[in-house]
Amino acid sequence: MRVLILGVDGYIGWALAQKLAAKGYDLYGADNFITRKRVREVGSDSVLPVPQISKRLLSFKDHYGKAIKFFRGNVADPEFLYKVFKEVKPDAVYHLAEQRSAPYSMIGLKQANETMTGNLVSTINLIYASKDINPDVHIIKLGTMGEYGTPNIDITEGFFDVEFRGRKDTLPFPRNASSWYHWSKVHDSNNLMFANRLWKLKITDVMQGVVYGTATKEIAHSNLYTRFDIDEVWGTALNRFAAQAVSGLPITPYGKGDQKRGFLSLEDSVSCLTIALEKPPNEGEYRVLNQFDQYYSVNYLARTVKEAYKEVTGNDARIEHVENPRIEAEEHYYNPDHDKLHNLGYRPSGELKGDVTKIIEDLIEHREKCIELKEVVMPKTLWRKSSGL
Amino acid sequence: MRVLILGVDGYIGWALAQKLAAKGYDLYGADNFITRKRVREVGSDSVLPVPQISKRLLSFKDHYGKAIKFFRGNVADPEFLYKVFKEVKPDAVYHLAEQRSAPYSMIGLKQANETMTGNLVSTINLIYASKDINPDVHIIKLGTMGEYGTPNIDITEGFFDVEFRGRKDTLPFPRNASSWYHWSKVHDSNNLMFANRLWKLKITDVMQGVVYGTATKEIAHSNLYTRFDIDEVWGTALNRFAAQAVSGLPITPYGKGDQKRGFLSLEDSVSCLTIALEKPPNEGEYRVLNQFDQYYSVNYLARTVKEAYKEVTGNDARIEHVENPRIEAEEHYYNPDHDKLHNLGYRPSGELKGDVTKIIEDLIEHREKCIELKEVVMPKTLWRKSSGL
Repeated sequence: MRVLILGVDGYIGWALAQKLAAKGYDLYGADNFITRKRVREVGSDSVLPVPQISKRLLSFKDHYGKAIKFFRGNVADPEFLYKVFKEVKPDAVYHLAEQRSAPYSMIGLKQANETMTGNLVSTINLIYASKDINPDVHIIKLGTMGEYGTPNIDITEGFFDVEFRGRKDTLPFPRNASSWYHWSKVHDSNNLMFANRLWKLKITDVMQGVVYGTATKEIAHSNLYTRFDIDEVWGTALNRFAAQAVSGLPITPYGKGDQKRGFLSLEDSVSCLTIALEKPPNEGEYRVLNQFDQYYSVNYLARTVKEAYKEVTGNDARIEHVENPRIEAEEHYYNPDHDKLHNLGYRPSGELKGDVTKIIEDLIEHREKCIELKEVVMPKTLWRKSSGL
Repeated sequence: MRVLILGVDGYIGWALAQKLAAKGYDLYGADNFITRKRVREVGSDSVLPVPQISKRLLSFKDHYGKAIKFFRGNVADPEFLYKVFKEVKPDAVYHLAEQRSAPYSMIGLKQANETMTGNLVSTINLIYASKDINPDVHIIKLGTMGEYGTPNIDITEGFFDVEFRGRKDTLPFPRNASSWYHWSKVHDSNNLMFANRLWKLKITDVMQGVVYGTATKEIAHSNLYTRFDIDEVWGTALNRFAAQAVSGLPITPYGKGDQKRGFLSLEDSVSCLTIALEKPPNEGEYRVLNQFDQYYSVNYLARTVKEAYKEVTGNDARIEHVENPRIEAEEHYYNPDHDKLHNLGYRPSGELKGDVTKIIEDLIEHREKCIELKEVVMPKTLWRKSSGL
């Protein structure tokens, strides 16, 4: 089975490639290294050292005994994507090649438009390349739980049965995102749903929670590390909290900290993405999966990091609520369904406290790097201040 | 009051400018003439002769005694829009400057991406220019009733009160559009809703039905004509049916013809847009208005055109159902609310039969042009065949 990973050089892409290699799939990958570039632009770097792609690919081949056939280019360039599709003729394609940072999209107008156009065009290109070259391909597209926002009703997986003024229908669950990045994912989901209606493409649209973790069980040595970002633009909540503790900074929930979000470990993320591949939707089905382990309040995560840090080091980390740079409800109802992946066989590989302990242990080995990056960890990108021209 | 019309050279923009001029507003306009160019590209032309912009503007000034201050450029270029905003400092801005053709967006990948990026970027530019330069400006943005699709429940105006598993919330009404063009308008609506949350911008998002008509009461002579398109890409249902009858072609409902859509005359469109201006939303409000007079089935429109044509000319027009080039339900429930504009004072200026009779009379004066364009009236852009690279 020929599997193409768009965005193979990224946090999830690189870990996923290793999971799939361990299972024996024929792997093809594409990337344009834009995340490396954008991370450098904010003065940051991956805390885990990540070799250049040529070295990565060599280490990968050495360890797994099989190479990834790699293509350098931008999925938002249709000529590039068509070339890759014609050469690979993938049975399944993961689209992990979008701009993935909410704060980046909120820096200003330029970044808003870059996120919107780059993400939407990459997905539309993928739709057309699929229907033109390989209409049976299974498209597995990374979206986010953030597409749904925090409604005062239960969140379903993609669609819900609604009764209104005495009539019934099954309709797309209303989306209500909170950054240009999150909205670009909503727009992608809508475009994919429409593409499925047009051409019966087989699509899994993954509404993923926030991913945390330094490693997966396949990552056997430092040349196989995936990247790990902790800065305010490219890092995400739990990973950043752990890095804050390790580098002696306060752990900083935004605002009241009662925001609840779905989370899952990197190990579980690549497991779920593998399940999506191995248990595909029906022919012509557009399937939405809510992909997370559990949901937690940000305050609960902060306390868990504090406790784990104490247990590992004997030292106290401080929790300090900071002004919320985002526009979001800080206290709200939250009850999203996530039965489908469970029914397909997903079982969490660990539990939060143990996972966080592992992150802290790994980061302590790179404490100097965490300290070096101190300056870029605290929030600076303020949603309301997103700059114009 | 300083009113800026983006897309002032278009079908609705030019008629709206005349309505507002007659009411004494200070008018500013922008356009990049892309519709003129794209219409020429499909071998078509406006049936009503439309002078070049310089002549248009002179005739306008002669007739209304006050000039439109005109800017040539693309709203999707932020530098251009910022320049216009800084110079005009509008109290209200109409955004009618988007790619407006569903068939155009479905020609192929290139047009899909052009529609998506051009439309979304123009609206995001407008959001940032507004919040940076004139945050009190009233943004009146043209969307479409097609954003909602045809759900099996009543359609509300933007938001609906939903009860689900025993809990309640007011949520965005689920959208389900049927072309890249219509989806680009959905994405715009979502982005505007978010911009309102971010910066409390005052926004009227107009879900407009299909507009028909050759003229408005302000359009006093041929140098003031607005454009009138009848080709399969740039013309819309009722206008095209009338042109088909006049040029001796069959009237061609798509498929079964029981598709129902909201319609309104050009006269009513500019009236409603003027009401939106004169009865603005509250400070910081994002308001959605469903803007149409009545909804009809396509078959009913075809029969009405046939009858009116008979009454005007004594001749019979033929109705011929053709294969539906679109992907849409051809029989469905349809009951969209449209109370808000009525409550603000909108009353239809005419009724369908009389409006259609007027269109046919006007087109008969340009029968030769209609016949000249025969070749481009019949549907050729097939949704399923949208071409790739």
